[in-house]
Amino acid sequence: MAFRATVLTLYPEMFPGPLGVSLAGKALERGDAVLETRQIRDFGKGRHRAVDDTPAGGGAGMVLRADVLGEAIDAASPEGDSRPRLLMSPRGRPLTQDFVRDLAAGEGALIVCGRFEGVDERIIEGRGLIEVSIGDYVLSGGEIAAMVLLDAVIRLLPGVMGNDQSGVHESFETRLLEHPHYTRPAEWEGRTIPPVLTSGDHGAVERWRRAEAERITRDRRPDLLTASKDRGAT
Amino acid sequence: MAFRATVLTLYPEMFPGPLGVSLAGKALERGDAVLETRQIRDFGKGRHRAVDDTPAGGGAGMVLRADVLGEAIDAASPEGDSRPRLLMSPRGRPLTQDFVRDLAAGEGALIVCGRFEGVDERIIEGRGLIEVSIGDYVLSGGEIAAMVLLDAVIRLLPGVMGNDQSGVHESFETRLLEHPHYTRPAEWEGRTIPPVLTSGDHGAVERWRRAEAERITRDRRPDLLTASKDRGAT
Repeated sequence: MAFRATVLTLYPEMFPGPLGVSLAGKALERGDAVLETRQIRDFGKGRHRAVDDTPAGGGAGMVLRADVLGEAIDAASPEGDSRPRLLMSPRGRPLTQDFVRDLAAGEGALIVCGRFEGVDERIIEGRGLIEVSIGDYVLSGGEIAAMVLLDAVIRLLPGVMGNDQSGVHESFETRLLEHPHYTRPAEWEGRTIPPVLTSGDHGAVERWRRAEAERITRDRRPDLLTASKDRGAT
Repeated sequence: MAFRATVLTLYPEMFPGPLGVSLAGKALERGDAVLETRQIRDFGKGRHRAVDDTPAGGGAGMVLRADVLGEAIDAASPEGDSRPRLLMSPRGRPLTQDFVRDLAAGEGALIVCGRFEGVDERIIEGRGLIEVSIGDYVLSGGEIAAMVLLDAVIRLLPGVMGNDQSGVHESFETRLLEHPHYTRPAEWEGRTIPPVLTSGDHGAVERWRRAEAERITRDRRPDLLTASKDRGAT
């Protein structure tokens, strides 16, 4: 069964957007992944199909209503749908490559994209939404965050990456940031390729790459080394 | 002067994509921000306009050539262009709301979107690229990451958010994750709004929101509290 993503949004016209091109676009075309959108406003209240209202307690912004989102979620994900229900939110569990891999191994996901000030807290509790954050910054809505998550997942689906080895050495799969890459020309603006890479000594190349990956990780993201020790990963 | 973003990509057709809609779309329409794309392949080599080549030292994937990217960057960013030059990359400096705010206060940015296995390291050194990562996961390319960065920046530009107060309480602006939100209806599926929010006591509402934001941050992201202490922020 193909990975099936259902995105609940006020801007379905944003999709597939960048996911319709290149690697993800081809995967969607082949049916390796299925992407559907649902318009939250279809479940809006009253003549104006209102989806939001002012925050209880006062303050700026508007809050997406629990009743509207509840009906939208129930219509998109009937009983028996065991896909995880995600809410893109800066308060959420940080997205990691491990979480991406778990999602890619599953049936799909229902993804709720917030807008405005946020969503009514009761929908998170009432529908068991898992809040997911793509990083410590604030976006205008959850849509681009959902695209990030889906792009990361889709590239890991079986058959999507042309070369199955291509994922092995990359950042976070080895718990290290990637070593530097070089290609032709051999010299560019007086800068040359490190001689070991053109030595033909495969063992030496591997050792250099490993040492460089460790050096770069230590310099830039020592937190990743601590995290991998804490988890007993190697 | 409007914030001016120039994106170098092999997929200019991905832009503006989701940035053409809603908040960012209106900002681009009004000219509060300008978004241009440049096709890297226009600077490709030979009859086939090759932009990449196999990695020195062997291995899977392809590497974007330094000479091709160098010409593309020089054409897009002539001498005197003082905008920062960013390369979206999982090895990069993690994107934070502070960095977003710094960018929003500047003239714009040149953003290079990698694809394939990576880019030749010499272009990073030779053109002073700042590697920026939107999170600890791997995408199929830098384009959606660039959209994340631009969406975060554009919403902070003067005049873009309808209500200037809307940004004040949100996640990371106060160094805390956001408190829960509630709106009508007063009761939904047996779930009610916390009484303090409908008490009319503004001081009590503020205290409750602050306490909830602290509780949620402590539970979910204790690292944010430590980070803000380390920096002497409040």
